[in-house]
Amino acid sequence: MKRSMYAGAVRSEHIGQELTLKGWVARRRDLGGLIFIDLRDREGIVQLVINPKTASNTVVKSAESLRSEYVIEVTGLIVERDQANDNLPTGQVEMQVTQLTILNASQTPPFEIKDKIEVNDDTRLRYRYLDLRRPEMLENFKLRAKVTHTIRNYLDDLDFIDVETPMLAKSTPEGARDYLVPSRMSQGHFYALPQSPQITKQLLMNAGFDRYYQIVKCFRDEDLRGDRQPEFTQVDLETSFLSEQEIQEITEGLIACVMKEVMGIELQLPLPQISYDTAMNNYGSDKPDTRFEMTLQDLTDLVKNTDFKVFSQAPAVKAIVAKNAADSYSRKAIDNLTDIVKPFGAKGLAWVKYNDGKIGGPIAKFLTTIEDELTERLQLEANDLVFFVADDLKIANSSLGALRNHLAKELNLIDHSKFNFLWVVDWPMFEWSEEENRYISAHHPFTLPQEDTVAELEGDLRKVRAVAYDIVLNGYELGGGSLRINQREIQERMFKALGFTKESARKQFGFLLEAMDYGFPPHGGLALGLDRFIMLLAGKENIREVIAFPKNNKASDPMTQAPSLVSDKQLDELYLQVNMNAVKNNEQE
Amino acid sequence: MKRSMYAGAVRSEHIGQELTLKGWVARRRDLGGLIFIDLRDREGIVQLVINPKTASNTVVKSAESLRSEYVIEVTGLIVERDQANDNLPTGQVEMQVTQLTILNASQTPPFEIKDKIEVNDDTRLRYRYLDLRRPEMLENFKLRAKVTHTIRNYLDDLDFIDVETPMLAKSTPEGARDYLVPSRMSQGHFYALPQSPQITKQLLMNAGFDRYYQIVKCFRDEDLRGDRQPEFTQVDLETSFLSEQEIQEITEGLIACVMKEVMGIELQLPLPQISYDTAMNNYGSDKPDTRFEMTLQDLTDLVKNTDFKVFSQAPAVKAIVAKNAADSYSRKAIDNLTDIVKPFGAKGLAWVKYNDGKIGGPIAKFLTTIEDELTERLQLEANDLVFFVADDLKIANSSLGALRNHLAKELNLIDHSKFNFLWVVDWPMFEWSEEENRYISAHHPFTLPQEDTVAELEGDLRKVRAVAYDIVLNGYELGGGSLRINQREIQERMFKALGFTKESARKQFGFLLEAMDYGFPPHGGLALGLDRFIMLLAGKENIREVIAFPKNNKASDPMTQAPSLVSDKQLDELYLQVNMNAVKNNEQE
Repeated sequence: MKRSMYAGAVRSEHIGQELTLKGWVARRRDLGGLIFIDLRDREGIVQLVINPKTASNTVVKSAESLRSEYVIEVTGLIVERDQANDNLPTGQVEMQVTQLTILNASQTPPFEIKDKIEVNDDTRLRYRYLDLRRPEMLENFKLRAKVTHTIRNYLDDLDFIDVETPMLAKSTPEGARDYLVPSRMSQGHFYALPQSPQITKQLLMNAGFDRYYQIVKCFRDEDLRGDRQPEFTQVDLETSFLSEQEIQEITEGLIACVMKEVMGIELQLPLPQISYDTAMNNYGSDKPDTRFEMTLQDLTDLVKNTDFKVFSQAPAVKAIVAKNAADSYSRKAIDNLTDIVKPFGAKGLAWVKYNDGKIGGPIAKFLTTIEDELTERLQLEANDLVFFVADDLKIANSSLGALRNHLAKELNLIDHSKFNFLWVVDWPMFEWSEEENRYISAHHPFTLPQEDTVAELEGDLRKVRAVAYDIVLNGYELGGGSLRINQREIQERMFKALGFTKESARKQFGFLLEAMDYGFPPHGGLALGLDRFIMLLAGKENIREVIAFPKNNKASDPMTQAPSLVSDKQLDELYLQVNMNAVKNNEQE
Repeated sequence: MKRSMYAGAVRSEHIGQELTLKGWVARRRDLGGLIFIDLRDREGIVQLVINPKTASNTVVKSAESLRSEYVIEVTGLIVERDQANDNLPTGQVEMQVTQLTILNASQTPPFEIKDKIEVNDDTRLRYRYLDLRRPEMLENFKLRAKVTHTIRNYLDDLDFIDVETPMLAKSTPEGARDYLVPSRMSQGHFYALPQSPQITKQLLMNAGFDRYYQIVKCFRDEDLRGDRQPEFTQVDLETSFLSEQEIQEITEGLIACVMKEVMGIELQLPLPQISYDTAMNNYGSDKPDTRFEMTLQDLTDLVKNTDFKVFSQAPAVKAIVAKNAADSYSRKAIDNLTDIVKPFGAKGLAWVKYNDGKIGGPIAKFLTTIEDELTERLQLEANDLVFFVADDLKIANSSLGALRNHLAKELNLIDHSKFNFLWVVDWPMFEWSEEENRYISAHHPFTLPQEDTVAELEGDLRKVRAVAYDIVLNGYELGGGSLRINQREIQERMFKALGFTKESARKQFGFLLEAMDYGFPPHGGLALGLDRFIMLLAGKENIREVIAFPKNNKASDPMTQAPSLVSDKQLDELYLQVNMNAVKNNEQE
């Protein structure tokens, strides 16, 4: 029989109709001589009733054999329910079943199909098809599809052309680690899965496409954590002839459109903008969470007036005030907070508590000369707790920035109904990499330098600024973009500044440099991390919750067992050998 | 200055307005003391005029330096053109340029940016950004974006959920050759890029998603030809609880929607259906091109009445009639046609010409006893040319099917304005693979057998029929689908019929079999080859014309040089070695 509608969509208006529904047995109860079944499909749950006195023998026998997660087809009359269940959208009605067919049986599932479960992640991933049956998971994917559809409609209306770019691309060692794909037809050669279609979309601008977008998989072979997966999805766009303001306006329109159509929230536009320097100085982060205050205060000048050398001789002393939190933190609890700042290079975490009109704590005695001004500057009130870091400015900022985020969670300062978007602009072009002992691109080597700082490509690289803009949501980097270099001469100087030789630049990026010889237009764009965006909209803390079949922290899939061993024939065709000794040594470690 | 609009969109209604346009110099001509420039952007071309008598010196100097493919920004008054050019949508107007800025220069491109070019494929691919500037190429990608957007809207309206499935998947040797991706975190293990998300989408049905779709990249490491690329795009959908007719209706609706909204063509629904056997018998193909007749005629019974043993003793004798074509084919030309049928196993190609009321040619004398009946059955008319193949039925069908397609092209029988869609249904489940010396799946091992043939899984595999349906357009397989197996017991029998042991089935597909233990619903779906569909809509003969950055026939990209050599560090991290001897031997071949 043809299904009449989704089980979860039955309402009072269907009373009196005979319907056919199909779905899963969420629950069976035998009560007062009747059999009650909760029938579940993707739209929800509806109650079925089988009355052994009136139903046929076959129906009753089938009904009695039902267990959770059996797949069934039922036909019957929709009637008003005696006792309405106001917690269910279908709670006013039930079906009096007259026909029942079991379409498939089920063993007892390894965990219950309901929203709150306590199951370890690998079990959820191993039985992902059961995990996804849980209503809150299914909702995440409906949300995701609605967001992507809204984004596509918005960009389509603005004449963006959806273009697919290659997955089998060229390996470029600049940036994160590539996933490689061995070639069979060019033995010993490898494709790389794209970390982003950055250069490709620039070439589409060179081809005159003018406005490009794509919702596209990208790949990075890096160690994994909550908001990272080996493959992730990007809303990728690029335009020609537009200013950074115009690109930001398009992006803001896109985000406002999603927030309104999907979340029912009216965003105030334009979004706030702060410079990279201000973000670092005030929030200690290039992706500040502005849902709460607790900004960083600069006390460097003030503490010069003390004899406390730890402070007075430090390049920078900065502080944050945890309002009304002094009694929430014992000495031991405060000591534990040093674990938060240490990874950022801070050598220690000083603190004072403010009570009864004065500061207290181990270092209070060193600050008596500045106590009044400190109290006024920080506007201290009873029960405030002040944390100080005295160090290089960069370390002071970033360690207090991390502490700020940590305290906000612990002190429950975050209003989770807020969606605080903002732009971080005026980025440095380069950042120093301790690992590589050289300057690397803060964004990527194709970012346009701000015109008045171009000359520093051959001077002080710290002074080169980028025409780049990141968009931040609730402390997460939601996306980033920039204008790009379209002049070969500037691009060559950029590669040189990054330590490329003429030869190595040509070898890696010769095709891009050559493309710049043929009327490459001014262009720029942006990419948004879709998984992260959906995660934040869904109120989740791990992108795995919004990816249908994600990998675990070892980048493997407990369900299919991918990655797996492959046959010798497959390797031979690729002219590859696995270095088995290395594998064995590694396994013994 | 902000661009006012696209250059190619300027019309008479803009006369009298001062506009700013940006784009490429398509052509510069100096005529009668004036400088004329064709300015090109993605929407077309508009004429600019610079009058050295009235324009500023700077503008004139800039204009005189312009060469093809320079990128410029111009501002000026739109005026009516003295001599309108009716071939151009902008032909009524021109711009009197008052400001001109050169945004980027260009070297002379390696080929002209115009529609008809004679350039070898690798040059086009090496300078793909220039190739894509050619208006007909850009149109292909606008068409493609319009088609995908139309498909998405259609499926979204039908409550299909767009879900992304993994690119880093598990290698399954059943089917075509996988592209492998070595894992760094599980050394010696490999992911595979998906040949299609077949099992994944089935698991989404098991998860209760009910209606899934995705426009998704798929990968096959096979040798390449015109309608094959290493990566290709599929419109992939799957539904639960629907019959094959309902899935076909959804698909027909989708295709009709695209044809109407994108091509302005109203399709007659439902689409015709023919069985696999009829397709083979009448057209010699499982993807018949029905834009022309010339169907295969079965003469096996008739030729039994001759002494011509080549015919009378053959298992099957079939014929096609090339109407009014006898004088177009010399004996030599006919001899050459044997090259068309030989690859299909035909040992020869017999023929007669019909003229003056009788048949002629080398074998005519053997057919005198049946000449009248032959003439009547084939409804021969003057100047008809008849081809015969006498062989196994399969060989006779497929070789005449290929000849039929070949002759249609040579004789120009095809109406290229036609879009003939049809379903081929009632497929055999298995086909014999000479290469593997066993039965393999005609579609894939998850296809549901027709109920009354299931028992033959342990009997005559040739008798097992599939609940499968392919959709064909103009002789191309546009897509295919089926209902799938949802019962573990049937799936296990299917694997056994395909030669799997219990152990090898468990190792490869254990997770699917296990999933069938937990209430797997009845389900089915379909996948359409998007590249092929766009190619046919655009009237092209190679899918490269509708893929932005395709690979050449060696699966490499002449622009980026992908695939390329990678560093030892990259290989070491993957515990891989390239077998260099093998590479060298191979290069010497």
